[in-house]
Amino acid sequence: MESEEVEQRMATIKDVAARAGVALGTASRVLSGSSQTSADSRARVLAAAAELGYIANGPARALRRARTDVLGLLVSDIRNPFFSELAHAAEQEARRHGYTVLLANANEDADQADAYLQTFASQRIDGLLFAPQSTVSPQLAATVASGLPLVFLNRTIEGIDAPMYGTDNAQGVGQVLDWLRRRGHRDVAFIGGPDTISTGAERRAAYLAGREQHGISTDEGLMEAGDFLADGAAKAMNRVLDRGVPFTAVFGANGPTTLGAVRALRERLGVEQAARIEVVSVDDLDWFEFASPPISAVRQDAAEIGRLGVRGVVDLIAGREASGQRVPTTFVDRSPQAQQ
Amino acid sequence: MESEEVEQRMATIKDVAARAGVALGTASRVLSGSSQTSADSRARVLAAAAELGYIANGPARALRRARTDVLGLLVSDIRNPFFSELAHAAEQEARRHGYTVLLANANEDADQADAYLQTFASQRIDGLLFAPQSTVSPQLAATVASGLPLVFLNRTIEGIDAPMYGTDNAQGVGQVLDWLRRRGHRDVAFIGGPDTISTGAERRAAYLAGREQHGISTDEGLMEAGDFLADGAAKAMNRVLDRGVPFTAVFGANGPTTLGAVRALRERLGVEQAARIEVVSVDDLDWFEFASPPISAVRQDAAEIGRLGVRGVVDLIAGREASGQRVPTTFVDRSPQAQQ
Repeated sequence: MESEEVEQRMATIKDVAARAGVALGTASRVLSGSSQTSADSRARVLAAAAELGYIANGPARALRRARTDVLGLLVSDIRNPFFSELAHAAEQEARRHGYTVLLANANEDADQADAYLQTFASQRIDGLLFAPQSTVSPQLAATVASGLPLVFLNRTIEGIDAPMYGTDNAQGVGQVLDWLRRRGHRDVAFIGGPDTISTGAERRAAYLAGREQHGISTDEGLMEAGDFLADGAAKAMNRVLDRGVPFTAVFGANGPTTLGAVRALRERLGVEQAARIEVVSVDDLDWFEFASPPISAVRQDAAEIGRLGVRGVVDLIAGREASGQRVPTTFVDRSPQAQQ
Repeated sequence: MESEEVEQRMATIKDVAARAGVALGTASRVLSGSSQTSADSRARVLAAAAELGYIANGPARALRRARTDVLGLLVSDIRNPFFSELAHAAEQEARRHGYTVLLANANEDADQADAYLQTFASQRIDGLLFAPQSTVSPQLAATVASGLPLVFLNRTIEGIDAPMYGTDNAQGVGQVLDWLRRRGHRDVAFIGGPDTISTGAERRAAYLAGREQHGISTDEGLMEAGDFLADGAAKAMNRVLDRGVPFTAVFGANGPTTLGAVRALRERLGVEQAARIEVVSVDDLDWFEFASPPISAVRQDAAEIGRLGVRGVVDLIAGREASGQRVPTTFVDRSPQAQQ
């Protein structure tokens, strides 16, 4: 931790105040957790502290020294099997290092994530693994400013410098594009996730960058985004159907999205008509092998991401360096040809 | 809390020592958390303390007073959608009461559950919602003895007097038996869960009690139990197949069990032959509607159980009484007749 801490100590409370454009007293009040500050100055000071890697003296530092042997794991959606699998593997790995893991579920809601960041702060965890929603909130800035060892899981947030362990989305989407071309699909409905979530943005960008050279239609009427949850994805699928642009395949950008899309197809078109549309997904769910036709999918290695994340945060706690890692995907081809 | 506490205070440390059959000094050392005690006397003292409802003075009591506005939720298997759905609903309800929820996952492992009970004790939660594995461990006895408000979710443990919010298993299994009779099944393979888990025992008992009067074979070669996880259930299904006793339907006693059973059927018999066997399940999973043939299921109201559990523990925290509740099930009939 030595060299890292020396580097971080170089930012003083004066630097933070200057960067935030507030008086020294204001910065001090914000960083000591006083409520006698406006929301605006709080946000500015905490953001500045985060950018400068400022670590408060006193309580926050003391907190870091009082080891609890507990890691916090804040996932985006515990009902998404990707995250429950990841959480399970993270726990097993944490136990190997002498830690227990407390889980919290943001349910793809940035406010709820903030509430849990606050809970974890008061519960004194040794390190945090976080699959974030979107932008830097004051609460996240405060977490970073407190010096709590932090790694991101599968998602990043611009402006926060923490190691990220996650899926190689460009590779995964590339595998989908190759499969779509092999299967001869030109008209493909793309149901993505929010562009504010890095995985949503990365998968969409990789798809847009590659679709033309894979012979896929660039009709924007085939592009839609949900909220990475099943109900939102069903609505997005219905918006594509409403436009009447024909398609022969659907690409769902995560597991719950594919579930929602399949449900919408069956409800709108009936089971037989829906079965004529091939579905491909990022995230391989338990039931894809049982679907008719079976659903081909990019398998994200959720377990490996969970294990690497734990090793990363354990390294940070021990004062070692940790550098993030993209974990390769595999493609599970369940199309008729592949079965022959 | 007044009347409850008076009642609990009636047990003194002398009562605990007498019941445990140890010296007063030993009981005192155990209850003050000293490590200078044998595992045997620790277990006996903590069990006696739990049975008598003894609440230690001092640290434990102080702990109870320092409100953290955090509830602990220890589930059996976070990858089981029943529990991830329950956890999600519990969080929403807890937020309505001003609490956040920290989740922990025992992965159907009593030792892991104990490790988390210890973590929650040191993390100072205001109350605990717990879906337990099996028997009273010293760690659970200590949790009870500490006076931490506690409710059970869907499962009970004999010897611990805490309100339980859970599924009406007798009703659910009755719905399955009625359906099996309506569908004309006589030879039914039953893949249950561990008898050490109350839901496993209750579902098996209800099935055994009702099968004969529903015209179902009493051949014991059709009865098997896994571990309520998919891989263990697949092995249990294979043991039934190994015996060569013919059957026309399979009843899986929870969601992961049904997943494992279906997987084993398809692997052993092939997709077409497996599709001739009707499957029915406790727990209704996302993909049952997509299976071929679709899988009929008992829907447990996981969300309602989570909400009731939170209300129960909030009542206990406020010193009010809480009495457990069995939550009714609904049956989702996806058989061909039902669709007409």
